[in-house]
Amino acid sequence: MDCTIVLEGGRNPSVREFRHLAPGDLVACGRKENGEDGIFVHTGGFRFPSRSMEKFAFRGRLTRETSFSIDYDELHGLLQFERESGFILWVLGPALVFDRDSRESFVKLIDRGYVHGLHAGNALAVHDIEAALFGTALGQEIYSKKSTHLGHYHHLDAINRINAIGSIREAVEQGHVADGIMRAVISRSIPYVLAGSIRDDGPLPDVVRDACRAQDEMRALARKATTVVALATQPHAIATGNLLPSYRVTTAGVRPAYFYNVDMSEFVAAKLADRGSLTARSILTNVQDFVVTVERGLREACP
Amino acid sequence: MDCTIVLEGGRNPSVREFRHLAPGDLVACGRKENGEDGIFVHTGGFRFPSRSMEKFAFRGRLTRETSFSIDYDELHGLLQFERESGFILWVLGPALVFDRDSRESFVKLIDRGYVHGLHAGNALAVHDIEAALFGTALGQEIYSKKSTHLGHYHHLDAINRINAIGSIREAVEQGHVADGIMRAVISRSIPYVLAGSIRDDGPLPDVVRDACRAQDEMRALARKATTVVALATQPHAIATGNLLPSYRVTTAGVRPAYFYNVDMSEFVAAKLADRGSLTARSILTNVQDFVVTVERGLREACP
Amino acid sequence: MDCTIVLEGGRNPSVREFRHLAPGDLVACGRKENGEDGIFVHTGGFRFPSRSMEKFAFRGRLTRETSFSIDYDELHGLLQFERESGFILWVLGPALVFDRDSRESFVKLIDRGYVHGLHAGNALAVHDIEAALFGTALGQEIYSKKSTHLGHYHHLDAINRINAIGSIREAVEQGHVADGIMRAVISRSIPYVLAGSIRDDGPLPDVVRDACRAQDEMRALARKATTVVALATQPHAIATGNLLPSYRVTTAGVRPAYFYNVDMSEFVAAKLADRGSLTARSILTNVQDFVVTVERGLREACP
Amino acid sequence: MDCTIVLEGGRNPSVREFRHLAPGDLVACGRKENGEDGIFVHTGGFRFPSRSMEKFAFRGRLTRETSFSIDYDELHGLLQFERESGFILWVLGPALVFDRDSRESFVKLIDRGYVHGLHAGNALAVHDIEAALFGTALGQEIYSKKSTHLGHYHHLDAINRINAIGSIREAVEQGHVADGIMRAVISRSIPYVLAGSIRDDGPLPDVVRDACRAQDEMRALARKATTVVALATQPHAIATGNLLPSYRVTTAGVRPAYFYNVDMSEFVAAKLADRGSLTARSILTNVQDFVVTVERGLREACP
Repeated sequence: MDCTIVLEGGRNPSVREFRHLAPGDLVACGRKENGEDGIFVHTGGFRFPSRSMEKFAFRGRLTRETSFSIDYDELHGLLQFERESGFILWVLGPALVFDRDSRESFVKLIDRGYVHGLHAGNALAVHDIEAALFGTALGQEIYSKKSTHLGHYHHLDAINRINAIGSIREAVEQGHVADGIMRAVISRSIPYVLAGSIRDDGPLPDVVRDACRAQDEMRALARKATTVVALATQPHAIATGNLLPSYRVTTAGVRPAYFYNVDMSEFVAAKLADRGSLTARSILTNVQDFVVTVERGLREACP
Repeated sequence: MDCTIVLEGGRNPSVREFRHLAPGDLVACGRKENGEDGIFVHTGGFRFPSRSMEKFAFRGRLTRETSFSIDYDELHGLLQFERESGFILWVLGPALVFDRDSRESFVKLIDRGYVHGLHAGNALAVHDIEAALFGTALGQEIYSKKSTHLGHYHHLDAINRINAIGSIREAVEQGHVADGIMRAVISRSIPYVLAGSIRDDGPLPDVVRDACRAQDEMRALARKATTVVALATQPHAIATGNLLPSYRVTTAGVRPAYFYNVDMSEFVAAKLADRGSLTARSILTNVQDFVVTVERGLREACP
Repeated sequence: MDCTIVLEGGRNPSVREFRHLAPGDLVACGRKENGEDGIFVHTGGFRFPSRSMEKFAFRGRLTRETSFSIDYDELHGLLQFERESGFILWVLGPALVFDRDSRESFVKLIDRGYVHGLHAGNALAVHDIEAALFGTALGQEIYSKKSTHLGHYHHLDAINRINAIGSIREAVEQGHVADGIMRAVISRSIPYVLAGSIRDDGPLPDVVRDACRAQDEMRALARKATTVVALATQPHAIATGNLLPSYRVTTAGVRPAYFYNVDMSEFVAAKLADRGSLTARSILTNVQDFVVTVERGLREACP
Repeated sequence: MDCTIVLEGGRNPSVREFRHLAPGDLVACGRKENGEDGIFVHTGGFRFPSRSMEKFAFRGRLTRETSFSIDYDELHGLLQFERESGFILWVLGPALVFDRDSRESFVKLIDRGYVHGLHAGNALAVHDIEAALFGTALGQEIYSKKSTHLGHYHHLDAINRINAIGSIREAVEQGHVADGIMRAVISRSIPYVLAGSIRDDGPLPDVVRDACRAQDEMRALARKATTVVALATQPHAIATGNLLPSYRVTTAGVRPAYFYNVDMSEFVAAKLADRGSLTARSILTNVQDFVVTVERGLREACP
């Protein structure tokens, strides 16, 4: 999305962002959709569930009242397939590690092979490490919800600890981080990008502070992805949606790249579509429940 | 809440709404909280989790980012206790029956003894019966999400069917309703109130159309309740909150009455508190996931 | 909506709800949309703004980020036209009277002829009268936001005061209610329906407690309406949407009946459409600002 | 917030972020709030409106139903004072320029002296310039809401145009950008920071891509600010809240720094407080209405 088609070496069409164009590049320039100009917009390549064709029907919108049972079932099947044959990229907001059960369930997903790449921000890593060091997120215990004494220093202490060591990877490898998502992805050599933001405390030394460089690193993972699942993070979900091709060419042929977005708000689901991620499927729920339910469902389906 | 204390027979203080007062009733009238006027407002009878006492702490508000693992665990323990020793009243919005898995999970909760009373409206019953007759809710299949041909007549057909038979109870007893929540509560003689509303189609013959009479019937159940769980229904949750005493006197002594409210929106959680249901605990998530998760948790804890 | 077509006196087709059918009525029964069965579903009678026909476009959804300037301008023109030549029905949630400026602005709209009918519930009337008597809504001053001493009795005092007098109308006519919306509509003989609900305190004697009778009274107003504006009230907006024909036959011909819904939430806007009010236009904002802005705009346009 | 106190030159305590500490700096380290350790947390320096002290009161939460009339009035007074004697920093989300009236109203606020600094992101500038060049935002006309033919290229065309010229400033000075917010701030030499993000298309050459450098530039403006108003931008509002001292020392003494946050969602208002911006006041409404209303109010109060 938001890219141009460049003829590389006179014969190989490839997709590139504007800022990676150089003078002399051969750019396809058609501005019609029907191909008479050089570009044909092909939207019917994959069959997706479509709307009713009757003039009148209830419940045509996606809301919290939409039935999501089938989405869980399809996702279970998809993730089992992708575990062996695809590349599952997760895009995580920090809320996931604010809760004990969802943090632990996601670690199980990593351990059982359902996570091949990770996009997140500074906060996800900081509070995951805070939970490992102190049992809290922003000073609140992630199970009992108690505010601990001077807990509002914990995330700063976590950042300082990692800074003193040098990086999350070294902290994990030296055994300072006993559990959690960052430990699991690093232990299993799963690639991740922590993209910087102006809200960041610290940030951690592993965070990519430059937005364009972060996009480049995120694109490298997005290009491999066959399924993306974004959890409770509007900016990272939109960013990844921007970087994600709608299809992948595999040895078995052309297949769709799936994009699931999980959020509490109809607004965020609509915003993703309004920004052009038209084939994204949204599940409207709390990501805490989503992760616990998906992990349990996969475990039952495939013990 | 919103009631007066009346001295019955000269000695027995009881709580009554205004519209049930009669001339000559002895009403306690104090307008101070400290008792010097006759009424002492006692708020410390039960210990509930309290906020941090430090001047500065993060995450003091209840939002979708609050950790809810402990709430599920506590609720599992509570519901197991109440199944034997209490009275569990559920307050249901129609969204629960828009989805196959949550509808089936709730039926399992009924079958396993976790439902002792039910507050709902016309829509819950209509779409539960529509699902039993046609597999749809408002014309959309509750699993595949497909809009069925002329499905927008289904809820009307369901209403007509029940009207022709005479009542939901008769329809269930004659075997016309093969599955679902209404069938389960009727089969197990669980008391329920379907309160009417101006949005109702039909309504079903079992619906109490008069708001005050509906309140009276709801109060009869609310007075028995030791735990209330309200799912995705702002009006019924507020109404039940208004009718619910904050404590119950049992043979074992005085105990709190618990009130859980499950909804997607911080606004609804705040509204309940803003209307005076101060001890309500809110869990912010999609009720589809909530019911599936609670049913599974109870089954694992107590097979 | 949700009605049948009955041939009255053998020649006059009219629209009636199920519960108003009698044995022997001639009901049109076609179940196809194309007319071969007796009913032709005609949806193109009025031109409404339509979506882009290109395969790809941003911002196709209605959200808080949709531009609403044109809606205000069109609404200003429409309300000026309808003031003379139509029937403007307002559907009000209680939030409107929780704030001084929006309450006063709505009174100005009444005084200047922009209100021909009113649908609301007990709470709108109770808190409007509470504001007249005590300057508060649910005990909080409607300008300073201060909680007044024992203010949580105010709405009950207001209800009791009206009950003692007999009705809102008598209280207004006897001069007990010095300002506000109820006083303005009663003084100007504007018809209103206060529909009861299970959440009601009291309720006020003017409230129609029976849901079906309330629907009948609301329908009588809805049938006259040429424009409906619903403010911050999901249940009343859906109920009125159910009762509202999509067109009106006037001496000048057939014209659309307009339905505007103002709410803060994408979910509520989608829900209205999901329940079949397909031509409703939603404006997503706080009704406090909406009413103040519309009143000011009309005053500037037409001093 | 999230800073340490450093004794500069042995006598001058100043506030610095961790990443600006150097070995040898004298850092105040107390970890108690009462001063026995070296730090005394003083929270009562300014009187802010407080909650009711009664045990029971309704409407204690901030929601869309909170009355906001007084906030507008206070804000009008405050902005008039600050125009002469303070520094008003605005933090803008892109939704502001998606609508014609709010975009034009904000330009009037700039022209009349109510804007002294600006924090925003790439999207605010891109779509403001898109509106100047094409009359659209993300391809949709900002008044008629019509999707224009191939409008989904417009924001890219805008970015390319600025890139070809070199910077927004040059484009404005050369007369390529005829109206809008960026033109107004540049024409009036109002300082601004456009902070980069991973969602950015382009980005524009003026965007600070490095998150830490963007924070530094934002802090330079935040330190001058006596009043901050953040409109519909959760990440920028939180970032600015993190950088903002709660008070300012002026020649007239110590005064509070005010922080207003305008958003549609209770969640965002709570999140700001949950991240430590405790004295922020939130107004829950659509920023389109907010800006139009504030501009009109200021114009009436001070023509």
